[in-house]
Amino acid sequence: MSHIKTFADCHVLEIKVDRAAKLNALSPEMYVDICLALGELDRSPDLRVGLIHAEGKHFSAGIELDKWAPIFAAGGGFPLPEGGIDLFALSGPRCRKPLVMAVQGYAYTWTVEMMLTTDVRIAAEDTRFAMLEVKRGIYPCGGATLRLPQQMGWSNAQRYLLTGDAWSAAESHRTGLVQEVVAPGEQYRAARAVADKIAAAAPLGVSAILKSSRLALTQGEAVAAEHIFDDMTQVMGSEDAQEGVRSFMERREAAFKGR
Amino acid sequence: MSHIKTFADCHVLEIKVDRAAKLNALSPEMYVDICLALGELDRSPDLRVGLIHAEGKHFSAGIELDKWAPIFAAGGGFPLPEGGIDLFALSGPRCRKPLVMAVQGYAYTWTVEMMLTTDVRIAAEDTRFAMLEVKRGIYPCGGATLRLPQQMGWSNAQRYLLTGDAWSAAESHRTGLVQEVVAPGEQYRAARAVADKIAAAAPLGVSAILKSSRLALTQGEAVAAEHIFDDMTQVMGSEDAQEGVRSFMERREAAFKGR
Amino acid sequence: MSHIKTFADCHVLEIKVDRAAKLNALSPEMYVDICLALGELDRSPDLRVGLIHAEGKHFSAGIELDKWAPIFAAGGGFPLPEGGIDLFALSGPRCRKPLVMAVQGYAYTWTVEMMLTTDVRIAAEDTRFAMLEVKRGIYPCGGATLRLPQQMGWSNAQRYLLTGDAWSAAESHRTGLVQEVVAPGEQYRAARAVADKIAAAAPLGVSAILKSSRLALTQGEAVAAEHIFDDMTQVMGSEDAQEGVRSFMERREAAFKGR
Repeated sequence: MSHIKTFADCHVLEIKVDRAAKLNALSPEMYVDICLALGELDRSPDLRVGLIHAEGKHFSAGIELDKWAPIFAAGGGFPLPEGGIDLFALSGPRCRKPLVMAVQGYAYTWTVEMMLTTDVRIAAEDTRFAMLEVKRGIYPCGGATLRLPQQMGWSNAQRYLLTGDAWSAAESHRTGLVQEVVAPGEQYRAARAVADKIAAAAPLGVSAILKSSRLALTQGEAVAAEHIFDDMTQVMGSEDAQEGVRSFMERREAAFKGR
Repeated sequence: MSHIKTFADCHVLEIKVDRAAKLNALSPEMYVDICLALGELDRSPDLRVGLIHAEGKHFSAGIELDKWAPIFAAGGGFPLPEGGIDLFALSGPRCRKPLVMAVQGYAYTWTVEMMLTTDVRIAAEDTRFAMLEVKRGIYPCGGATLRLPQQMGWSNAQRYLLTGDAWSAAESHRTGLVQEVVAPGEQYRAARAVADKIAAAAPLGVSAILKSSRLALTQGEAVAAEHIFDDMTQVMGSEDAQEGVRSFMERREAAFKGR
Repeated sequence: MSHIKTFADCHVLEIKVDRAAKLNALSPEMYVDICLALGELDRSPDLRVGLIHAEGKHFSAGIELDKWAPIFAAGGGFPLPEGGIDLFALSGPRCRKPLVMAVQGYAYTWTVEMMLTTDVRIAAEDTRFAMLEVKRGIYPCGGATLRLPQQMGWSNAQRYLLTGDAWSAAESHRTGLVQEVVAPGEQYRAARAVADKIAAAAPLGVSAILKSSRLALTQGEAVAAEHIFDDMTQVMGSEDAQEGVRSFMERREAAFKGR
């Protein structure tokens, strides 16, 4: 039985890490299952946003190192399955739908690295973040070396990466890593509320934002600027753009269809 | 009569959005007028810094969508006039002089996008920032997809871009989007004080800073590092560099001439 | 006698600026000496981390401008010595070991610029940071134009670069420039504590982190992502990786050897 549960509801695909008895330690099989769920989210026209969360007091204490050691030693990268999308966003295409993530308790190593690939993050007050690799004789290979300095600031990130020290939810909020800190137990609900708002927004607009923002991040402002108007013309011609104007005139919430 | 007023004084070009009766909604004509004012600021040897502010309780509730819809649908970009500089800094050259901006009340859509092209920003406590596009069936095409993640942090920006939710002046300060939050009504004065300081600084130094910082942002550290000393040699040979040393020795404020 | 003192102890190379009588003004000779110390840190297999600090109430009030003026005017860049590593990280290779820095009192011009090349920074509460160049008729040529916007945020950085205004330790902490603010006099001790933690971490992991993070910063995520697994394979095969697993099983601190 898989330790990754999925549940689709009102355009939101929930992806739950469900192995609390082992502190949600990530096995290679769980990696594969999350990647497949992200692939489903990406392809399904009815799904608009993903919500990643975890059962239990802790998001995850880390990876099952003995299972992963031969994979790391072999050097071929992560075991990305056919039809899946790499949860570390290091190889293959990115998921074109936004991801929201809720964390609590231990949020160690791969938890931080997956978080760095998501778009909105909510943390319980009791969350303890850490990149422990340098204390174990190894180093982070799931993207933290790339994205923690980019998202938290160079020296804020190195202060934790180079020592292996843990940091708090408040520190994550201060440095821009999470957007909201809530009481323990409330993180799923708060994250679902954000996911529902994104699901209610115009899907063509949402995917154009992600595409343009990623282009700017990876290829720079000038390249992204060139593509802004191509996408705008398409979005302006959509049924949803007309619904947007109508709903504004009629002073009601818009009901978007993604076309 | 134009809704954009300009006023030059002590090396500062003030650019005022003056259409409070319509909540300073941006028409295509106002876009053109701001671009022309930026062009004048860029070319005039006597002008050293621009100050953008708005009349009334709100900076702007957004754009006049019905006037802009055909322009967006046509897909040719913004109607940048001859001799003007794009206020969204998406096409054509950038203004070589720094920009300071003061915002209050509603600071919606294009307000945020123009702000992202400026160099110092002051907000009144009552400012409400929002990128509302995904609630209207469209998406932001004035640069927020490029620059909000870059300046506010990836997930802080996506949290607002993907939902259309508003955020406060305090949140803008926390995330680095504005440098100072002041009592409502004080934003113009506070911004003018910063503009006056920049106007009193050595103009060759100021323009060399902007040039070097933009080069680093768009082409990377290595390219920018190569040009630092070329510019320094020129600046060191200027009359202002001598005045800088003299005024320091004589313990007085320097009077710079920009040559 | 040199105004730069070095002291090696438990894998940490301390580099002390020791010219308090002249407010630690940086002469060209001191520049050379710091570069040589960084070269030694980089080459010596026994040294794992550098700690930069300064004697006296102030880190430094700036550079000895009369000594530097002819060097700047000549335009050939900084006088980087054979075997040295540029303390401004503008030319030549970077130091492959991490740097921790402690500042207090005046932390002007080159102090900020050196800080921007380090990986963890501690400030005393009384620290006053400033980039004064535009008040002296010149402009910053030690990397602040490149790195202050990158590390502090565009408009936070320009607010100080373009005016020459000073800012506080609290503002540096808020904007991500320093990681910890301590009582005056405690900055060396706090920085040494961080340096000792880095020295206790796995040296191969530490250097792989710096290498990967710098690659991402200078060449982008995609290039850095390609190299993550090459380095991981090497690190996984090290003695330290085995010691990491063993020490974890035996619930004790690991003793790493850097091989």
